[in-house]
Amino acid sequence: MTARTHKCGEVLEGLIGQRVRLKGWVKKRRDLGQVIFVDLRDRSGFVQIVFNGEKEPETFQAGEKVRNEYVIEVEGEVLERDAQNVNDKIETGKVEVMVDDVKILNAAKGLPFVIEDTVDVSEDVRLKYRYLDLRRPKMQETMDLRHKTTKFIRDYLDEETFMEIETPMLTKSTPEGARDYLVPSRVHHGQFYALPQSPQLFKQLLMVSGFERYYQVARCFRDEDLRADRQPEFTQVDIEASFMEKEDLLTMMEDMMTKLVEKVKGAKVEKPFARLTYDEAMNRYGSDKPDTRYGMELTDVSGIVKNSGFKVFASTVEKGGVVKGISLKGAADQYSRKDLDGLGSFVEVYGAKGLAWLKVEEGEELKGPIAKFFSDEEKASVIEAFEAEAGDVLFFVADKIRVAWDSLGALRQKFAREHDLIDHSKYNFLWVTEFPLLGYDEEEDRYVAEHHPFTRPVAEDEEKLESEPQNVRAEAYDLVLNGYELGGGSQRIYERKLQEKMFSALGFSDEEAKSQFGFLLDAFEYGTPPHGGIALGLDRLVMILAGRSNLRDTIAFPKTASASCLLTKAPSEVSSAQLEELNLNVLPKKKTEEGE
Amino acid sequence: MTARTHKCGEVLEGLIGQRVRLKGWVKKRRDLGQVIFVDLRDRSGFVQIVFNGEKEPETFQAGEKVRNEYVIEVEGEVLERDAQNVNDKIETGKVEVMVDDVKILNAAKGLPFVIEDTVDVSEDVRLKYRYLDLRRPKMQETMDLRHKTTKFIRDYLDEETFMEIETPMLTKSTPEGARDYLVPSRVHHGQFYALPQSPQLFKQLLMVSGFERYYQVARCFRDEDLRADRQPEFTQVDIEASFMEKEDLLTMMEDMMTKLVEKVKGAKVEKPFARLTYDEAMNRYGSDKPDTRYGMELTDVSGIVKNSGFKVFASTVEKGGVVKGISLKGAADQYSRKDLDGLGSFVEVYGAKGLAWLKVEEGEELKGPIAKFFSDEEKASVIEAFEAEAGDVLFFVADKIRVAWDSLGALRQKFAREHDLIDHSKYNFLWVTEFPLLGYDEEEDRYVAEHHPFTRPVAEDEEKLESEPQNVRAEAYDLVLNGYELGGGSQRIYERKLQEKMFSALGFSDEEAKSQFGFLLDAFEYGTPPHGGIALGLDRLVMILAGRSNLRDTIAFPKTASASCLLTKAPSEVSSAQLEELNLNVLPKKKTEEGE
Repeated sequence: MTARTHKCGEVLEGLIGQRVRLKGWVKKRRDLGQVIFVDLRDRSGFVQIVFNGEKEPETFQAGEKVRNEYVIEVEGEVLERDAQNVNDKIETGKVEVMVDDVKILNAAKGLPFVIEDTVDVSEDVRLKYRYLDLRRPKMQETMDLRHKTTKFIRDYLDEETFMEIETPMLTKSTPEGARDYLVPSRVHHGQFYALPQSPQLFKQLLMVSGFERYYQVARCFRDEDLRADRQPEFTQVDIEASFMEKEDLLTMMEDMMTKLVEKVKGAKVEKPFARLTYDEAMNRYGSDKPDTRYGMELTDVSGIVKNSGFKVFASTVEKGGVVKGISLKGAADQYSRKDLDGLGSFVEVYGAKGLAWLKVEEGEELKGPIAKFFSDEEKASVIEAFEAEAGDVLFFVADKIRVAWDSLGALRQKFAREHDLIDHSKYNFLWVTEFPLLGYDEEEDRYVAEHHPFTRPVAEDEEKLESEPQNVRAEAYDLVLNGYELGGGSQRIYERKLQEKMFSALGFSDEEAKSQFGFLLDAFEYGTPPHGGIALGLDRLVMILAGRSNLRDTIAFPKTASASCLLTKAPSEVSSAQLEELNLNVLPKKKTEEGE
Repeated sequence: MTARTHKCGEVLEGLIGQRVRLKGWVKKRRDLGQVIFVDLRDRSGFVQIVFNGEKEPETFQAGEKVRNEYVIEVEGEVLERDAQNVNDKIETGKVEVMVDDVKILNAAKGLPFVIEDTVDVSEDVRLKYRYLDLRRPKMQETMDLRHKTTKFIRDYLDEETFMEIETPMLTKSTPEGARDYLVPSRVHHGQFYALPQSPQLFKQLLMVSGFERYYQVARCFRDEDLRADRQPEFTQVDIEASFMEKEDLLTMMEDMMTKLVEKVKGAKVEKPFARLTYDEAMNRYGSDKPDTRYGMELTDVSGIVKNSGFKVFASTVEKGGVVKGISLKGAADQYSRKDLDGLGSFVEVYGAKGLAWLKVEEGEELKGPIAKFFSDEEKASVIEAFEAEAGDVLFFVADKIRVAWDSLGALRQKFAREHDLIDHSKYNFLWVTEFPLLGYDEEEDRYVAEHHPFTRPVAEDEEKLESEPQNVRAEAYDLVLNGYELGGGSQRIYERKLQEKMFSALGFSDEEAKSQFGFLLDAFEYGTPPHGGIALGLDRLVMILAGRSNLRDTIAFPKTASASCLLTKAPSEVSSAQLEELNLNVLPKKKTEEGE
């Protein structure tokens, strides 16, 4: 073999009259009898090459054999195309290569699908033949975007004197957080490593070590039931800094993200990013990761309807609940009464008992089954609260505040999608702050950390950690982009005593705290600096930047929803010798309850 | 908290007269009664700060409380030191900071060892308190060197249009190669993932996908019994390229390595690197990763001694063995007869039955117990073969060639270390090529791949794959630096038929090959380009560049020889609920044979 002189995408007008040697894949082949046109593709693009039976009979014979996706090497002269054959849509469209030497490097049999962006096979087929799926231009671009994004972030953090340090993958299982993937030890009988859910503990220890500024593009693992936007293994940009004010960290992140978007998408993003407290975000958008590319904010009408004749509303407010609503502008004539009643089942998923609605008519009139329960004054106040106009539809949920947030937040997103209210050219970053530190877990009957047990409480709330844990706010900040949680960060606890208080608030006994996190508590006694940090989900960031809606499209070899790799067929059975070495025995399959 | 104005290492003469705010650790504290001197350290270095009881009595009281490794924040004016107090050994030695405000950010109790480069505790204590061990300047420098090395490699490969693509960590267990770490699946009963030993299969699939140039700084795993230079998880710089000639790849690697060494060590390395075939390397140095920073090459005297009166030599040659030796220059008077005889036990480890020796004396005379068996002519020829001079000692092993290589290769290294023959300023890179493709595994009674089963045979040897597999050379190349194997690469098989032949040479049935590697064989039929690549051991590279001799010193949180983390105590027992979810049962501990 001899090296190529050019890449396919580099064969432009400047090369007319020159000889080139190219290597690549047959993208398309048109056989016109004595002339065969082939689009030859490599990573850089493609160019038309020509086999001419009259001029180059020997080469032509070889050319006749090639089929789609064959890998070939060709030599020939770059010619200018006839005016009528120029293709303005592609950069190489003014030229073609007259082939006078060809070598078939490898053949290809018929493909399970065509290598084009629009592919009409199921995702399962794409995943089984992932190596072909990845040939599609869109997949190549997404992988390139992922590479460029990661490279940019590394360059940026390096410039800011952050040091990339690798932390272990074979580490210790801890009971907090999601379910661990376990790795049996062959050497230590009955013992297991866990794959990291994040490098959290190690990055904090690196702060104890005095590295001051650490980052890592780190693989993390969670053995959870998967949704479309979850993968068992995922990549996070993990950042931690000592002696860095929270404000300085947020400012740096804003600078990094705006420069990234400019670099890889050529788009301008305003700084500083908007900030919302958790309460504000929930009250206004019904979400702690609101998409602010459109309005349709939640409006609280509890005060207006609390004495109304509509008992459902009045009694909800009386019992301490809320009545909140959203307004869908100008859509009244798109929804029949039946359509509107049908939306009730959508909010039921979020725990709401029902969805009330009112159409706004000319003359500040409200129409709908519940309209009759309201006084004129109440109607006017509702219209004013929503700044409603004729043609709008108002939707209400009366319930506990959490249910009102969740159901209206979801409805808001649904309407935005269905009514095309989203400006897809926008990158709306925002910070959500002052999250609750703890949430009550009904199932476990104890408080659990909303972020993780190492998050610092807001200083003025610290004393409430024992007395009213539900009201302690966290020094935490989530970075949100276009309705996705891009990442979360916080200032950390760095004092042994406060960390012990935190574990105690989570229901750990002293002994449990020591056996699980003793090394961290110990470390805190040897001169631990104040520190904080953030972790960004790289897969999700790339997904948004690439304009995709599926995390799997941003990962070269992803897993399915059941955590399988359809290409390699992992997981798979292993030999009994392997299990024996690990001192393990697979228990018989339990009959499921339905099966019994 | 307020941000620091400077880092400790930045407080230089230019700042005299200015106010600074610093944060860091108390490195050292000298209490002189009314004045306390503290060396304040952060990642950038350290500077002397002064608490003066007369000038700043309030601050002084706080200063009296601080102890070693406390984390403090101070403010004060930068003063010029008195001439007699200037410390020329450190960059900040001309100044000191007169503290007028101090805040203790965190206390530190007595440390298990002092934070200094020379530390007099066992490695186990260092590993248990790794977060303190990493505070030592040498460890900080090594981590920094590791970061810079990785960053340089990424920048270089990015510049060469290589794209970093992440491959899965949860993948499929394959029987070839080292032992896999397994990860039980919770969802798929009785099935397991394996952690990757390398991204080999995925990077080849990425070539099938047309990415053409891929790299990844990839974590890899091997569940093997550990030696000082092995870790259960390690990091490799993984590179693969399509349509790239082997020569172009080697040239690029040479360019990358020389630029790296220049960048991080400021040292010049000559290009192109030396090349040795495997046979040459073994015959001349008794090693396939020879350290060429010193001579002492192996000399073959089989032809000279084959008819000698020394039966051991003569009969070895007659039976097809060899007699090889090395010459230790000018060391004759450092070794007594007893010393020399004692070296026999050293080579026994490598399978040698004995080590013969001869001292060279004035007048081309040889002395030693076996001298009498040789004729004058034979003696003269031996002296000529070694270019020996009076005072040299010659050592001989007569055995099968493999044994002679191994034992003399090891002896050569031992002498070089003991006699200080190694020029530690040198970076001697070299390529070893033409490795045997297959080696015979006595235990398994079959051929196994010397590199891996995807390595391409040298074209002219391909036809011997079935008839004389032991004589097939591989299109493989190892990069060696100062006696360490830095990495290995090869051109790959890209044709289904040849890959099937290879599996068959390894003793796989068609069915086994298909069930384990079917997806790769299938992929080869859809237009696979010629490709090849290399993988470099990052930990080892950093170890050599940092001038360390222990891999653990290059890894932030390493494992011990029994694959334990002494800091977090991983691996550890997990709850029965976790095991139940995985459908696993730990078998009772087997009694060891000695225990029975």
